[in-house]
Amino acid sequence: MGDPSAHSCFTTTHVAPSAVSHALQSSTFNGYAPTSGLPQTRRAIAEYLSRDLPYNLSMDDVFITSGCTQAIDVALAMLARPGANILLPRPGFPIYELSASFRHIEVRYFDLLPEKGWMVDLDAVEALADQDTVAMVVINPGNPCGNVYSYQHLKEIAEAANRLKILVIADEVYGHLTFGSQPFVPMGVFGSTVPVLTLGSISKRWIVPGWRLGWFVTTDPCSTFKNHKVVERIKKYFDLLGGPATFIQAAVPQILEQADEVFFKKTLNILKQTSNTCYDTIKEIPCLSCPYKPEGSMAVMVKLNLSLLEDISDDIDFCFKLANEESVIVLPGIAVGLKDWIRFTFAVDPTSLEEALGRVKSFCKRHGKQFQRY
Amino acid sequence: MGDPSAHSCFTTTHVAPSAVSHALQSSTFNGYAPTSGLPQTRRAIAEYLSRDLPYNLSMDDVFITSGCTQAIDVALAMLARPGANILLPRPGFPIYELSASFRHIEVRYFDLLPEKGWMVDLDAVEALADQDTVAMVVINPGNPCGNVYSYQHLKEIAEAANRLKILVIADEVYGHLTFGSQPFVPMGVFGSTVPVLTLGSISKRWIVPGWRLGWFVTTDPCSTFKNHKVVERIKKYFDLLGGPATFIQAAVPQILEQADEVFFKKTLNILKQTSNTCYDTIKEIPCLSCPYKPEGSMAVMVKLNLSLLEDISDDIDFCFKLANEESVIVLPGIAVGLKDWIRFTFAVDPTSLEEALGRVKSFCKRHGKQFQRY
Repeated sequence: MGDPSAHSCFTTTHVAPSAVSHALQSSTFNGYAPTSGLPQTRRAIAEYLSRDLPYNLSMDDVFITSGCTQAIDVALAMLARPGANILLPRPGFPIYELSASFRHIEVRYFDLLPEKGWMVDLDAVEALADQDTVAMVVINPGNPCGNVYSYQHLKEIAEAANRLKILVIADEVYGHLTFGSQPFVPMGVFGSTVPVLTLGSISKRWIVPGWRLGWFVTTDPCSTFKNHKVVERIKKYFDLLGGPATFIQAAVPQILEQADEVFFKKTLNILKQTSNTCYDTIKEIPCLSCPYKPEGSMAVMVKLNLSLLEDISDDIDFCFKLANEESVIVLPGIAVGLKDWIRFTFAVDPTSLEEALGRVKSFCKRHGKQFQRY
Repeated sequence: MGDPSAHSCFTTTHVAPSAVSHALQSSTFNGYAPTSGLPQTRRAIAEYLSRDLPYNLSMDDVFITSGCTQAIDVALAMLARPGANILLPRPGFPIYELSASFRHIEVRYFDLLPEKGWMVDLDAVEALADQDTVAMVVINPGNPCGNVYSYQHLKEIAEAANRLKILVIADEVYGHLTFGSQPFVPMGVFGSTVPVLTLGSISKRWIVPGWRLGWFVTTDPCSTFKNHKVVERIKKYFDLLGGPATFIQAAVPQILEQADEVFFKKTLNILKQTSNTCYDTIKEIPCLSCPYKPEGSMAVMVKLNLSLLEDISDDIDFCFKLANEESVIVLPGIAVGLKDWIRFTFAVDPTSLEEALGRVKSFCKRHGKQFQRY
């Protein structure tokens, strides 16, 4: 699990802990919040998300969750019904599959196309969907691929989902964390084409993943999905969840309103630098290839060419041996659905990253077939 | 929902916010915790609970939840399987029924006996259980009845559950909040007789319900319930939950170890006083009766004698009219499973409580039948 907060270059802005500390010290937020979240927090999140939309969300669209992880599980729990299936991207984020198995939803995978900037294979989506398909998941900026989708591609996804009469679950936990040519466009821009469930959190942009403050949002301006009955069911479900601490919720309006542009810029600059380092070094290693230069999020997928390696049987073997011999940890691709790929996270401080990539290089050289070794 | 933190006489001990503030300011707890909880927090809770047990829990028995509410839902989700049923107390805490409906578990109610100090009707439990019964729920100290069970009664419950081969879910969110003759005995004392899932939190004893810090604990020294497969499944489930903020978790060891006895005593003294006021005033109101003087928790059940009231049709009517005419809010008993009863919460500052009870008295007098009015 990549956690940028472990690295000193990724420290949250002072605004965030100071707002939380203030709420804690006030002693007025030790009690229960409404289970859907504090009204001022729901309102602040609605306003924050509406800045990038052609319409305004209301506070009633917003439900506060314990991080984006819980928002994922809420989305799937709310869509579960006997026989239901859901379309997930491959590679993707494994929590979706885990949640689907606990909520009894069948999983069907569509590919993201590495040679096309990890775009959604929309033909596959159309082929997989049937009358029991409840939703498709779009993670943008992409985890684990670092892709950022264009306005045009998101529009095509929305139109396909509309034709198939399925919801889009838009996982935007890395929202605004883009540092390439493609700007971040929220899926909710196409909320009039297709109802969108927007999932997000302050975890990544504010680098406080341990604060567990996320949101589940009905981005559905035409009320295609949401109606009185659906909203009542969501509310009841939130009665079971616990949710984040009231005093952290109380700090959110201040955190979102005092968006610290200098801090955001600093984070993006480091991510741009470390993703470049990652991409450039990988290009120099014969047995590795990276089909796409990451433009967002904190991870990138790298393909293993096993035919160039002497004694590595697959991605898991590569990762275990690398960890043993070089104390460098990368994720086997199979964990995110792609065998014989590996996932690098570049939300790491630049010096450590260079050291780690140097070790990956020696490792690959040492295990490379004879003809390349000299 | 009773929330003592709304009243200035129920303020948490300075130890708690100061420990949280310290963890927050350290900047070392902004990252993810393991999804089962921080190891030091799990260990501290295991030690805290073991103080009252004839054996020691280990940190592996403890999973950290967003308050006791989430612990309830985890317990039911972990026990759900096709056709399963669960035995719930009546009156009880409505979240159990809600969770059971989302987790597809059939609910069967056994009565708590008002004339016997709200003891469990064990004959009813034996009659209700069958091979699909997975557990029975015991809330002690009792919510909403204010009862505190004796060692002997808990032993009888454990023996019955053992005979029926069902688990006991011990909801001890009000653990240690006892102020009568009966001391608090945790159900886990009988963990060798029957596997117990102990649910709790710092919400009530430390009066910080909004901090959402609870626990789900396998109190099962003979490993009757827990085995490798069960524990792996629980762990996977926690991967979906989000859980409480890491820096709040990090403060828990200090909070539990520096148990502030003066603060605990102060809380219990106020609860003893307010519960007495409640009980004594109710005795003076002809249409109300209270079969049991509360010895724990923060609530008491009061029976309505509708035959002595002129224009009140049921408990809901009573509560609505009381709220309208006197701005006093009490919970209709039907919300906790007992029609024509009402629930008073006495976790209220003494002056407000006296004022409120005075208004209930005038309300009852005004609506009393002619023959009592003069």
